[in-house]
Amino acid sequence: MAKANLRPVIGIDLGGTNMQIGVVDASGKILGRSKKKTRAEEGAAKVIQRIFDGIQEACDEAKVPTKSLLAVGIGAPGAIDPVTGVVLEAPNLRWNHVPLASTLAKRVGRPVYVDNDVRSAIYGEHQLGAGRGCSELMGVWIGTGIGGGLILRNELYHGHTNTAGEVGHMTLFPHMPPGSRSIENNCSRTSIVGRILTLIRTNHKSIVPKLADNDLTDVKARVVAMAFDRKDRVTLDVVEDAANILGIGIANMVTALGLQRVVIGGGLTEAMGERLVALVRRSVHAHAFPSVAKKVEVVKTELEADAGLLGAASLARKNVGRRAPRVVR
Amino acid sequence: MAKANLRPVIGIDLGGTNMQIGVVDASGKILGRSKKKTRAEEGAAKVIQRIFDGIQEACDEAKVPTKSLLAVGIGAPGAIDPVTGVVLEAPNLRWNHVPLASTLAKRVGRPVYVDNDVRSAIYGEHQLGAGRGCSELMGVWIGTGIGGGLILRNELYHGHTNTAGEVGHMTLFPHMPPGSRSIENNCSRTSIVGRILTLIRTNHKSIVPKLADNDLTDVKARVVAMAFDRKDRVTLDVVEDAANILGIGIANMVTALGLQRVVIGGGLTEAMGERLVALVRRSVHAHAFPSVAKKVEVVKTELEADAGLLGAASLARKNVGRRAPRVVR
Repeated sequence: MAKANLRPVIGIDLGGTNMQIGVVDASGKILGRSKKKTRAEEGAAKVIQRIFDGIQEACDEAKVPTKSLLAVGIGAPGAIDPVTGVVLEAPNLRWNHVPLASTLAKRVGRPVYVDNDVRSAIYGEHQLGAGRGCSELMGVWIGTGIGGGLILRNELYHGHTNTAGEVGHMTLFPHMPPGSRSIENNCSRTSIVGRILTLIRTNHKSIVPKLADNDLTDVKARVVAMAFDRKDRVTLDVVEDAANILGIGIANMVTALGLQRVVIGGGLTEAMGERLVALVRRSVHAHAFPSVAKKVEVVKTELEADAGLLGAASLARKNVGRRAPRVVR
Repeated sequence: MAKANLRPVIGIDLGGTNMQIGVVDASGKILGRSKKKTRAEEGAAKVIQRIFDGIQEACDEAKVPTKSLLAVGIGAPGAIDPVTGVVLEAPNLRWNHVPLASTLAKRVGRPVYVDNDVRSAIYGEHQLGAGRGCSELMGVWIGTGIGGGLILRNELYHGHTNTAGEVGHMTLFPHMPPGSRSIENNCSRTSIVGRILTLIRTNHKSIVPKLADNDLTDVKARVVAMAFDRKDRVTLDVVEDAANILGIGIANMVTALGLQRVVIGGGLTEAMGERLVALVRRSVHAHAFPSVAKKVEVVKTELEADAGLLGAASLARKNVGRRAPRVVR
């Protein structure tokens, strides 16, 4: 049994645009990889076929035969039932009630476990990254939206509704108009870019349009990071305000749960690094209940873009032997 | 062993003004009681002596010899270390680092367990009251302040810093002046009365001064409830606003933790009952993430003023056999 658990697992970070697939050994090392376009518009069956192909390619690169795999773990965007492995609702994939675990398990011949992508990433940090050794941990991922996840008493916490960790929906400005009240409304990369563009449209000078080659339809995290680095006034103001607000929301959770550590990750964090984390940290320490603020650590993701893949692999390894996925047809 | 656990336990709700002591049988029935003044100003030794005397009196009333008690449980106000039973800091008792569990255990000759008063009360609701059968539960107690506690995965959750459940400190109005930003600043009985008095001082008509016999130094929950019942405009406006704000803060926790049920208790809830809970419920359902709002229940305390005593008794019963209190001298 102990020996069986040393067999490699597959970890998959399934995104709306790309999927990252890796063969992961028992120490958390990635032995082989493949990356594919998701192409959600082609439908769930074809996406699952591409996942299957990607598993073969990653196994080939790792020189690991598929039949020696212990299990497959997938982090998927949206609302997931981790017990059945059904993707309940994933707007990014255009999926509704897709039995991902049981469909893929039939193809691969190994057990498949599915959980939410951000929760998987935070479990990855807990097992292999910035959350190691910490029993009470929150992860907050700053990207297109604000995602989050909780490790409580050393275990991934799902709550009654599998929404645990959704701090992005926290209301912080009850008297503001809808669309401006929540953490996500103020602190996601999308919201930060939106506020920068509003200021530019009202005649504030900024180098953002030039850095984005005058294409302001989809300003990337990389552009925000460059503008911040070059001390673009508008970008500094908006990012500092957003980090302060995010820190207040995190402080609320830190106090209410007595958390030990908070890991900050996601696309904007990967692009901006410690500069962004330092601003969030200062706000958390200023706003948490003093006896808690003294003890809480706010740190940057260590696993960065591999957090989701490694976390999904770790979850699969943990679940094997504990429970079989309940089959749903 | 099973038989030993059927022996009665003592449950104590230790407040800044009064202490409530009860002999509680294995089904949660109170067999005998005593109530005493706390008289914190006389110092910890005399308070602990009065606790000891109260235990004797309650045992006499219940016709239960002290030596047949299984254990003693105490809910105490302030910051508690539940592992050692030390009261770390309790401003209401003027206590700092008082080893309550070990001191009292030497007198009674039975193991003594101490936890925070509000957390004890919410554990009581989980075991015997409005939280029965619910694995993910939050309790919010509206009184002099706002207290709270969490049951996660069917167990009382303390967090890394033993502050878990302190929702009163949640910032909801980041841009307001200090003293107006948190849930407690807006929704405790103290804050509600303060806002009513401010409106009265600025010439708003109200029956509150008459109901309080013109003594506005310490307006009780009972007076607020009477004014609300008689549709006093100022009281209706302030209580409705406070309940709405409290509901937003609770909704933040319900979404972020995926909670199944919320129990509302405390002095103001006992005085106002379902009228207050209905206002909070409406706000929680309006502000929680829709898929979570559909499922969450918001209910009134069932155990009311006995929640703390019964919860402390339940915690003592649970802890016996699981762990001995670590002795601190």
